[in-house]
Amino acid sequence: MIKFAQFGAGFIGKIHGANIAKHPRAELAYVYDVLPAPAESLATQLGAKVAASPEEIWASDVDAVLIASSTNTHADLLSGAIKAGKAVYCEKPVDLNIERVKAVAREAQGSARPILVGFSRRFDPNHAGIRELLHSGEIGKLEMMSITARDPKPPAISYVKVSGGQLRDQTIHFFDMLRWLAGEDPIEVYATGAVLVDPAIGEAGDVDTAMLILKFPSGALCHINCSRRADYGYDERVELFGSLGMALSRRKPRREISVYKGKSIVSEGLHAGWFERMEPTFYRALDALIRAMEGEQIEYPTLTDGLKAQLIAEAAVESLHTNRPVEITYWSPE
Amino acid sequence: MIKFAQFGAGFIGKIHGANIAKHPRAELAYVYDVLPAPAESLATQLGAKVAASPEEIWASDVDAVLIASSTNTHADLLSGAIKAGKAVYCEKPVDLNIERVKAVAREAQGSARPILVGFSRRFDPNHAGIRELLHSGEIGKLEMMSITARDPKPPAISYVKVSGGQLRDQTIHFFDMLRWLAGEDPIEVYATGAVLVDPAIGEAGDVDTAMLILKFPSGALCHINCSRRADYGYDERVELFGSLGMALSRRKPRREISVYKGKSIVSEGLHAGWFERMEPTFYRALDALIRAMEGEQIEYPTLTDGLKAQLIAEAAVESLHTNRPVEITYWSPE
Amino acid sequence: MIKFAQFGAGFIGKIHGANIAKHPRAELAYVYDVLPAPAESLATQLGAKVAASPEEIWASDVDAVLIASSTNTHADLLSGAIKAGKAVYCEKPVDLNIERVKAVAREAQGSARPILVGFSRRFDPNHAGIRELLHSGEIGKLEMMSITARDPKPPAISYVKVSGGQLRDQTIHFFDMLRWLAGEDPIEVYATGAVLVDPAIGEAGDVDTAMLILKFPSGALCHINCSRRADYGYDERVELFGSLGMALSRRKPRREISVYKGKSIVSEGLHAGWFERMEPTFYRALDALIRAMEGEQIEYPTLTDGLKAQLIAEAAVESLHTNRPVEITYWSPE
Amino acid sequence: MIKFAQFGAGFIGKIHGANIAKHPRAELAYVYDVLPAPAESLATQLGAKVAASPEEIWASDVDAVLIASSTNTHADLLSGAIKAGKAVYCEKPVDLNIERVKAVAREAQGSARPILVGFSRRFDPNHAGIRELLHSGEIGKLEMMSITARDPKPPAISYVKVSGGQLRDQTIHFFDMLRWLAGEDPIEVYATGAVLVDPAIGEAGDVDTAMLILKFPSGALCHINCSRRADYGYDERVELFGSLGMALSRRKPRREISVYKGKSIVSEGLHAGWFERMEPTFYRALDALIRAMEGEQIEYPTLTDGLKAQLIAEAAVESLHTNRPVEITYWSPE
Repeated sequence: MIKFAQFGAGFIGKIHGANIAKHPRAELAYVYDVLPAPAESLATQLGAKVAASPEEIWASDVDAVLIASSTNTHADLLSGAIKAGKAVYCEKPVDLNIERVKAVAREAQGSARPILVGFSRRFDPNHAGIRELLHSGEIGKLEMMSITARDPKPPAISYVKVSGGQLRDQTIHFFDMLRWLAGEDPIEVYATGAVLVDPAIGEAGDVDTAMLILKFPSGALCHINCSRRADYGYDERVELFGSLGMALSRRKPRREISVYKGKSIVSEGLHAGWFERMEPTFYRALDALIRAMEGEQIEYPTLTDGLKAQLIAEAAVESLHTNRPVEITYWSPE
Repeated sequence: MIKFAQFGAGFIGKIHGANIAKHPRAELAYVYDVLPAPAESLATQLGAKVAASPEEIWASDVDAVLIASSTNTHADLLSGAIKAGKAVYCEKPVDLNIERVKAVAREAQGSARPILVGFSRRFDPNHAGIRELLHSGEIGKLEMMSITARDPKPPAISYVKVSGGQLRDQTIHFFDMLRWLAGEDPIEVYATGAVLVDPAIGEAGDVDTAMLILKFPSGALCHINCSRRADYGYDERVELFGSLGMALSRRKPRREISVYKGKSIVSEGLHAGWFERMEPTFYRALDALIRAMEGEQIEYPTLTDGLKAQLIAEAAVESLHTNRPVEITYWSPE
Repeated sequence: MIKFAQFGAGFIGKIHGANIAKHPRAELAYVYDVLPAPAESLATQLGAKVAASPEEIWASDVDAVLIASSTNTHADLLSGAIKAGKAVYCEKPVDLNIERVKAVAREAQGSARPILVGFSRRFDPNHAGIRELLHSGEIGKLEMMSITARDPKPPAISYVKVSGGQLRDQTIHFFDMLRWLAGEDPIEVYATGAVLVDPAIGEAGDVDTAMLILKFPSGALCHINCSRRADYGYDERVELFGSLGMALSRRKPRREISVYKGKSIVSEGLHAGWFERMEPTFYRALDALIRAMEGEQIEYPTLTDGLKAQLIAEAAVESLHTNRPVEITYWSPE
Repeated sequence: MIKFAQFGAGFIGKIHGANIAKHPRAELAYVYDVLPAPAESLATQLGAKVAASPEEIWASDVDAVLIASSTNTHADLLSGAIKAGKAVYCEKPVDLNIERVKAVAREAQGSARPILVGFSRRFDPNHAGIRELLHSGEIGKLEMMSITARDPKPPAISYVKVSGGQLRDQTIHFFDMLRWLAGEDPIEVYATGAVLVDPAIGEAGDVDTAMLILKFPSGALCHINCSRRADYGYDERVELFGSLGMALSRRKPRREISVYKGKSIVSEGLHAGWFERMEPTFYRALDALIRAMEGEQIEYPTLTDGLKAQLIAEAAVESLHTNRPVEITYWSPE
């Protein structure tokens, strides 16, 4: 059994905690949260102890930590976990300050324990399926990729102000996904956006509607379009256009129900939110970390992947502000 | 050029006349209708002459006749055409009196000219496509067939009273289709029905909702369901279930348009009527007759096919009235 | 917390046991199986005790029992549970001997505890969705229902010999479902079948391919087609045709992946088996029993429902053997 | 009857000629082609005369001309038609030299006769359907548009060298379409491309794979992706994302046929080429011109529309060459 401690007992913490409890080869030993009440409640429900401090966790015999606390604590906790020799599942992003991320990446250089950054969409069976189709040669060489990502409702303005903005908190999932799907790192990005959903988002210095084009070294092109608000639910889909065919990770309906009536066919639509759609990916991501800890050769989003996605986001933000394509500069701790 | 004369200048006559005029290797020489005005009008529009009588047509140099007049005239006109050595495209049914059909079939024995009975659904590309899939072995040996056929609106009660009823005027198309698809003749039929759409149909001695099961000599089973009224347009589809897979001739939407809105996906529905859906099959059926006349080896629904479909219908009607499965007795002019 | 004891630790027992353990308001106290090893193993995994005998369970403080043992033990265990005042989740069928089922139904007359018979398909969200559409009036009055049910592979011949045959073990799910969907009990059934999949099934006195038509008191008609083997996976779907529209519980694909290549669009197909498709319904059925025990007004398949489905199956078997429609005779313990 | 003369008797000329002949209120009086043989052949087939020169046509009593000759002749013929007071259906583009197009637009200022530039996709029922949905308010205010356009096979290199390149000959249809759909003119375009299909296209100075982002004055964004080669047939589709929903003009399959086999569902794919898919739009475009000539208030792509699409293409080409967004400058003859 792999022993876990978990930081954070909020919405996403509850999901992760329940997944650890459900996993046949993992157990949740500790929960820590700056707010004692949620920590107590989650720990009681899952049969874990409340840790008095992160230090208690570093000193404990847990094998791994799951960092689901607020973003501004991720980097310090990652540092602590690295020093204590714990494996880590860290929710994204590592830190909004890219220099801080680099510093953590440098620290992690010496560590042999797996660190998984929570780009859980890599574990969606539809997305993984089209990746296999591309990598197996079924659709030939990739020439164009197209990603659509639309949230049903914009986040609170208070979140928009601290999240880094649409490209850094929403699109970033797809900066990771496009690298993972293509098997290569984009070299240039052009991003443009508009404030069409809520003027308050504009006043907060951000956009709510964005379109991007990225270029890969192979010459392949990638389009992303994002919105903060879709009237019809959570819409995420990917198209891979290759020299020998096209693979689609299609929209997933809530239920397979249709009504034929009058001149129309009315079918049940999409999920109400990203969570309903993506919830099963969290367990699979956790399972991947556990398998990696058990020695299995298994792919997962690493700290370097997390950093690269953020570097793409930084270039995209620069492009958005300057209205010109921006070269993406990568960085390696070595 | 193949010269045609046409009997009947009503709704379906106009379609056939225009198709003859459009065909590059056919021309319409004569139109005959018991009502002079529609005959004049159609002839003028298509550059043909009005024939004063059927006899004028039998005596003329036309190569073929298209019989699109009222059902009670079909058998006599077929007889006339056979005697005059003309090829024939005859709208179904040949005659509601099965003995009269047999008599015509006997007369046709000697004739070398093609006679096509208007089961034009055989020329629908979707249906033809799944037939090819079955006959090529792609889905293995046929085990179950399922046919759905629903008209948007019931016909006029006056028509119900003379048409022979739902099984003889609506389902008959599918009695032909199942033979053509399966490549074998069913040996038994169980039919049941109900009056759910309009009590007046029941008062006229007919049903408006019917379900049937037919058995093939191979053991394969066939289900048909028919309704006189579907709120959502014309619904016709076929499923072939075989030992190695299933082939579907799916519903055909009017347009490929969808709207994602709220909790639903609303797509444009089916055609408003059978004619909008099946219209292109008339030209293809005509073309098949013309090719047959030109000597091409080409399959088309023959007089024998027309008779067999009617014999299945007779057995089905008996089953409907007796509520027990009825053996189908075929008959051959030889 | 509702305390459960479970009979049976085989394949389906493991599923039920895990569901009880997962349910927030239930706990598994005992496991009993005639084979001690599987009982031990399941009990250990789920933190329950092994019961030495059914009597130990009747005498215990458990509130409910889950009967997932072999079919021939169901009736006795139900009797025992009724006498001991326990609520019951009983896998279908209650007993292959219909008189034995009636006897148990009579015994249950006095009991106030809920007895749920495992027709878990009632808890499938797609099927439940079209039922709501019908009952809300969205598609008008039901006129035709069509159910397709095909298993990927035939069961072992040893099972065919004791199961009561295709209509009693496969189609029976849909005898329950059609009553539940229509909201009325069919009055007549015509069933026909063939041996097309495996001659050994025929030698065992059964069919492997079946088509049925049932009539409802309202005049509505219902078609069912069943096969023991579908090359393309588990295929279950339902169509409700009403006076104002049609509702479909469509096939559910494994994943939403398509490849456009050459002249074809290749999409991922259906689930490998009924279990992969229906697995989530078991938890929902258990949850319904628990809610009923908690006093919630909630619908679930009762002992009477189980009996009625079996009475329809008996009539269907008689129809299959006599090749004529058979009236369905219901029976009530009162 | 409206009398037409037609310039050009090649592939597209044959289509247009047959459409004129088929139209109930039009007749084809003259055909002119620099090559006498095709002119003779087409004229004979359609019952028209061969004109000895354009002048013969200008002097004739024809009401309208259809210009389907080679691109380099369009502008002169348009000029001639304007001077002679004929209505015009002119295949796109008017001229590759934008100054020449402006000159013709200036000449047309005085003319009251309709001039239709052949952006026939405006007459596709699917595309027209989503435009109605947008303009009726059904999906709210447009926020993002996405257009995919992929040809099955690249054109001959000889054509690539004279066509003006991918953006000027392929994408230009969608520069018109996006204006027509959005109801506003884009103000900026970013275009990027790659040579992934055939190096010879790169050697000819062009790209074969292109992605673009355009901005509308309202803030709405538009993405286009184009390829010269799609393994799976002709792929054209449009998505309109609005504040209240999303409308799709979906792909149109050749036939509605599917096979369920093994783990896959194989459905018939897309049309073999743009012509098979778009052929019905030519007749509808002709019909629009005829209705406009008859005095009906009807929308059609005008000379100004043709010019605007070309001005967008020029800006896109500049963007492609400079790798920066380019402002689009419109021009008006007034």
